[in-house]
Amino acid sequence: MLKVYLSGEIHTDWRERIVAGAKGLEVAFSSPVTDHDASDDCGVAILGAEDRKVWHDRKGAQINAIRTRKGIEDADVVVVRFGEKYKQWNAAFDAGYAAALGKSLIVLHGPDHAHALKEVDAAALAVAETPEQIVDVLRYVQTGALPAAADA
Amino acid sequence: MLKVYLSGEIHTDWRERIVAGAKGLEVAFSSPVTDHDASDDCGVAILGAEDRKVWHDRKGAQINAIRTRKGIEDADVVVVRFGEKYKQWNAAFDAGYAAALGKSLIVLHGPDHAHALKEVDAAALAVAETPEQIVDVLRYVQTGALPAAADA
Amino acid sequence: MLKVYLSGEIHTDWRERIVAGAKGLEVAFSSPVTDHDASDDCGVAILGAEDRKVWHDRKGAQINAIRTRKGIEDADVVVVRFGEKYKQWNAAFDAGYAAALGKSLIVLHGPDHAHALKEVDAAALAVAETPEQIVDVLRYVQTGALPAAADA
Amino acid sequence: MLKVYLSGEIHTDWRERIVAGAKGLEVAFSSPVTDHDASDDCGVAILGAEDRKVWHDRKGAQINAIRTRKGIEDADVVVVRFGEKYKQWNAAFDAGYAAALGKSLIVLHGPDHAHALKEVDAAALAVAETPEQIVDVLRYVQTGALPAAADA
Amino acid sequence: MLKVYLSGEIHTDWRERIVAGAKGLEVAFSSPVTDHDASDDCGVAILGAEDRKVWHDRKGAQINAIRTRKGIEDADVVVVRFGEKYKQWNAAFDAGYAAALGKSLIVLHGPDHAHALKEVDAAALAVAETPEQIVDVLRYVQTGALPAAADA
Amino acid sequence: MLKVYLSGEIHTDWRERIVAGAKGLEVAFSSPVTDHDASDDCGVAILGAEDRKVWHDRKGAQINAIRTRKGIEDADVVVVRFGEKYKQWNAAFDAGYAAALGKSLIVLHGPDHAHALKEVDAAALAVAETPEQIVDVLRYVQTGALPAAADA
Amino acid sequence: MLKVYLSGEIHTDWRERIVAGAKGLEVAFSSPVTDHDASDDCGVAILGAEDRKVWHDRKGAQINAIRTRKGIEDADVVVVRFGEKYKQWNAAFDAGYAAALGKSLIVLHGPDHAHALKEVDAAALAVAETPEQIVDVLRYVQTGALPAAADA
Amino acid sequence: MLKVYLSGEIHTDWRERIVAGAKGLEVAFSSPVTDHDASDDCGVAILGAEDRKVWHDRKGAQINAIRTRKGIEDADVVVVRFGEKYKQWNAAFDAGYAAALGKSLIVLHGPDHAHALKEVDAAALAVAETPEQIVDVLRYVQTGALPAAADA
Repeated sequence: MLKVYLSGEIHTDWRERIVAGAKGLEVAFSSPVTDHDASDDCGVAILGAEDRKVWHDRKGAQINAIRTRKGIEDADVVVVRFGEKYKQWNAAFDAGYAAALGKSLIVLHGPDHAHALKEVDAAALAVAETPEQIVDVLRYVQTGALPAAADA
Repeated sequence: MLKVYLSGEIHTDWRERIVAGAKGLEVAFSSPVTDHDASDDCGVAILGAEDRKVWHDRKGAQINAIRTRKGIEDADVVVVRFGEKYKQWNAAFDAGYAAALGKSLIVLHGPDHAHALKEVDAAALAVAETPEQIVDVLRYVQTGALPAAADA
Repeated sequence: MLKVYLSGEIHTDWRERIVAGAKGLEVAFSSPVTDHDASDDCGVAILGAEDRKVWHDRKGAQINAIRTRKGIEDADVVVVRFGEKYKQWNAAFDAGYAAALGKSLIVLHGPDHAHALKEVDAAALAVAETPEQIVDVLRYVQTGALPAAADA
Repeated sequence: MLKVYLSGEIHTDWRERIVAGAKGLEVAFSSPVTDHDASDDCGVAILGAEDRKVWHDRKGAQINAIRTRKGIEDADVVVVRFGEKYKQWNAAFDAGYAAALGKSLIVLHGPDHAHALKEVDAAALAVAETPEQIVDVLRYVQTGALPAAADA
Repeated sequence: MLKVYLSGEIHTDWRERIVAGAKGLEVAFSSPVTDHDASDDCGVAILGAEDRKVWHDRKGAQINAIRTRKGIEDADVVVVRFGEKYKQWNAAFDAGYAAALGKSLIVLHGPDHAHALKEVDAAALAVAETPEQIVDVLRYVQTGALPAAADA
Repeated sequence: MLKVYLSGEIHTDWRERIVAGAKGLEVAFSSPVTDHDASDDCGVAILGAEDRKVWHDRKGAQINAIRTRKGIEDADVVVVRFGEKYKQWNAAFDAGYAAALGKSLIVLHGPDHAHALKEVDAAALAVAETPEQIVDVLRYVQTGALPAAADA
Repeated sequence: MLKVYLSGEIHTDWRERIVAGAKGLEVAFSSPVTDHDASDDCGVAILGAEDRKVWHDRKGAQINAIRTRKGIEDADVVVVRFGEKYKQWNAAFDAGYAAALGKSLIVLHGPDHAHALKEVDAAALAVAETPEQIVDVLRYVQTGALPAAADA
Repeated sequence: MLKVYLSGEIHTDWRERIVAGAKGLEVAFSSPVTDHDASDDCGVAILGAEDRKVWHDRKGAQINAIRTRKGIEDADVVVVRFGEKYKQWNAAFDAGYAAALGKSLIVLHGPDHAHALKEVDAAALAVAETPEQIVDVLRYVQTGALPAAADA
C-alpha cells in the first residue's frame, strides 16, 4: 500500500482526477480539509469566537495542522500542487515539512511557476504539470507499468 | 484511523463523554489505568510489598509507565485533561513527553487554570474547555465536518 | 496489541509459562531461536563451514542478529531473563540495546543476581522473579486488572 | 563539560546554591528567565499588547519556549525543582519533555510531594531533597568524588 | 551561543538591522547567499551551462540547498522573513523544513500577509512585524532583558 | 511478517528463486522495477522528453528512487545482489543506504567479487553465494529451521 | 578529535595502558567511575541510606547511569573490556546500548571468552585481546599508521 | 566551519587539489586512509593473521569503517569521487550511507560514468567533473563568491 498525501491548491479538481486515475492501484490518499470556509473557521466554530482576526486564524490553522501533520507523517509520497492564484505559502510549507522528514516529494505546477518554485522543485523527486502525470508516476512506482505508447 | 491517547484527570467522566461522542468516527482511543487504587498499588501487588512508601510508589509508577509510554508513542493525538483538584503533575509530564515526540497535543481544562497552564497550552494545537469540543475537533480533523449552526 | 520480545536464558520453560499465562490477552510474543545447537551452528550450516571457531561463531551470531534486531525493534516491551548459569552476555547486550531504543524493559531473575544486575535493573521498568509476575505485569498493563487477593 | 539545565521553581535561591556549590566543576548551567514579571509579560512587551489574557499569556509562553527548548535540548542533565507552592505544571512539562528526549533527569523536591510526583520521579535517575545533594551528584558524576565522611 | 538562521526576502536591509541590533549578544547568524544574480546563476557558473531554464535553475537551487540545509540544521532559531513582493515559496519551504526539524521558528511579515501566512505563523513561536522586534526577542531569550519602558 | 527488499542485479532469475524458495514463509518481498528499459525511460515517458541524456537519466532515476526508498525504508531485511557484469553502483548505493538506516543487510555475490565488495560485506549480517542460501537464512530467521542434513 | 569511552572491567590497568599508549593522538577518553566502593555506594552516600540492598544498589546504579550515558552518547568509539572474573553484565549492557546508538564498538577480551561473547563480538568493528591492540586501532583510525614491522 | 568528507578513488591527486584550492576557506576536510596497502592489511596487521582472504579483508574493512563512519557522520558535505578504473563499490556504498543520513552529497566523475551513476547522481546536490568545480562549489557555499568571469 502506497500512502499519498495531496497538499496544496483547493480550487480545482486535481485531487479528484488523481484519485480517479489511480483507481485499481493500491494507493491510499489523504488530504487537508478542502472546504475553504470550514478550513478558515474551524477554530472559532469549535473553540469559541475571537475578536482579532489573527487569533481567529491561529485557532483554525492549528486545528488544521493536526490533520496535515498526520497526513504528511503517515505518507510515503507527498504531492504538492501550486495553482495559478494566491500565495499558497501553506503548500510550500508542507513541501518543506515533507522534505525535512525525508518523504518522497512530487510537485505539480504549470511552467509559469517553474522559476519561482525552483527551490521546491529541487527537493522533489518528480515535477509534473498535470494530474495525469502524477497518476502515471504512482502507477509506475507501484506496478512498473509505463503509460501507453503515445507517451513512451 | 486516528489514534488518540487520553491522559490526565481520572475522577470525572470526560473520557466516556469523548468516546461516546466520537462513536462512528475512525478513532482508536487508549488511556492510562483509571482505577486509582489499582494504579497506586499495582507495583507492590505484583512485584512484592515495600516498607517505604517511596518504593511502593516507584514500583507502581514504573509499571504504569509501560502502558503510558505505549499509549503516547502509538498516538497521533494526545489529549491531556487537567481537572479542578490535585497537583496532576503526571498530566503535565505526559504533555511534555508528547510534545517532545512531536505528537499533536490537545489540552482540556477550565478557564481558571489558563494562566497556570500557559506553557502547556503554548505547546498545544488546541485548548478546549469541554469534552464535546474535543469530539468536535476529532470529527473535524477526520471528516472535515463542523458542528451544527449553533456553534458556528 | 502489545508486542513483547522474550530475550535471554533458553534452558528452562519460562517462555512457555509466560505465553501460556498470557493466553487471552492481546499480546504478540517473539523470541530468539531457542534451539541451542541450531543457534550455534546456523551460520556454517547455511553459509559454509569455517576452520576457526571464531568465524564459525561470528557467522551464526550475525544471522541470529537478524532475528533479534527485528524482535527488539518491533517490540513495545522487552523481557530479559537471566538464569542461574552461564555468562549470558547476549541477554545483557539485548537489554542495553532495548534500553537505548527506549523500549520498556522488564528483567527477570532470582534475588542472587540482584547486585550483579544492578545496572540492568536500573534501566528497567519492572524487575520480576517469576514468569507469573511477568504475566501479571502484562495483564495489568493491558487490562488494568490486578492479580487476585493472595498477591495483593 | 557537563551541560545542566535548571528548570522549575523560581522563588527560592536553589539555583544560586547549586551554581555556587558546583564552582570548580566543569559544568555549564542554563535556566529559564527567572524574573517572574518579565517572563509573564515578555510576549506583549515585545510583540504588542493583547486584550485577552489568554493571548497575552500565549505570546509570552511561546517566547519563553525558545529559551527553554534550547536549554533542554543542549543539556546532558535536566534538574527539575518543585517548590512548596503553585501548580508548577511547566516544571512537570519540562520533566516530561526532557525524559522523552532521553536526557538524564534529576528531580528536586521535599518529601511532602513524593506521592504526587511519583510518575515524574519514576522517570528520573536521581531524586534529591536539597540543592546540596544535586551538587554532590554533579560532582560525583564528573569527578567520582563522594561527599565527605559525614554523608557516606 | 544562540545560532540563528535568517531565511527569506533578500531585497531590503532586514538582516543588517537584526545583526546590528544584536551586537553584543552571543548570537551567531547565518543566511542564504543574498546576491540575487549569484544565487540564480551559481549552478551553471560552476557546473556548466544548460539550454533549458529548468535545469539552469535546478543546478543553482541544489547548490544553494547545500548552504541552506547547513544553516537550518545548525540553527537553534530560524527566522523567516516574507516581504511585500514575489511568491517567496522558498521562504515558506524553509519554514516548513525548520518546523519539521523542531527548530524554534520566528516569522517576520507585515499585517497584510497575516491571513495568507496563517499556517506558517501557527507553527511559529513568535510572529514579528519589524526586525527590531526580532532583536528584542533574541535579546530577551538570551539575557532575560525586556525592551525599555516605551515598549513594555 | 518479515519484509524483505531485493536490490541489485536484474539480469538473472535470482529474485524468482528466492521468492519461490520462500513460499510458505511469512515473508513479504519488494524490489525495484526490473524491466531495464522501463526503468531507464520512465522519467521521460511520463514527464516529457529531454535533449540531454543526463537529464533523461536524472528524471528516471528520481522516479525510481520513490520506489526504492519506500522498499528499503519499509524493509526489515535488505538483500543486495551483485552480478558478474556492469558497475552496479546503484546496488552498492542501496546497501549503504540500508546500512545507514540500520536495516539487516544480506549481500549475495560470487567469490570473485569478495575483495572488491569487502566494505559492503563488512556492513552485512550475512554474505551468501546462492539465492538458496538466502532462502535458508530467511527460513531460519523466521522459523528456526535449518536446511536438511546435507548442509548441517 | 576522536572521543572514546572505555567501558567494563575495573580491576586491571587496561585503561591506563590505552591512555598511555594513545599519548600524542587526538583522542579524548572518558570512562565510568572505577573506584568500586564509590561506585557501589554513591547512591546512599548522596541521597540517603536504604534498608534494602536492592534500593541501595538502585540509587547508586542510576547515578552512575548519568555518567555512563553521557560517556557513551558523546563517544565516537566505545571500547568494552571483559575481564577474567565476575558476571560483568553492565559491560555487555553498555555494548548493547552503544550498538543500538550506532557507535563504533570495539571489544577487548581473552580467547577463553570468545564463544560466550559471540553475539557481542558480532556487533563490533574490532575484537582485540590486548590494550596495545586497541591503541594500534585508534592510531590507525586517526593517522593511518600501522604498527611497526614486527606486526605487519 | 564546513566539514567535508572526501570519499572514493585513491589513485589520483583529486583530494590534494581540492584541499589546496580550498585554502583560505573555513573548511575542515577528512578522508579515508588512502594508503592502499595499509588499508587492505590493517586488520591482520593489528589483530592477527587470517588464513582465509575473506576474513583478512573483513577485519581490515571493519577497522576502516570506524574511520569512515566518523568521517561521514561528522560531515556537512560528502564528496564521492569515482575514478576511471575498478569497481569502487565502497564509494557508492558511502554515497548511499551519506544520502540516508541526509548529508549534502556531491559526486565527482567523468562524463563516461554518467549513465552508470545515474542513481547516485540523482541523490546528489551537485555533480562535478573536476576537483576545481568542487572547490568552486565549496567557496560559493561558504562565501557566496562565484568563480571569475570566464566561468560565469
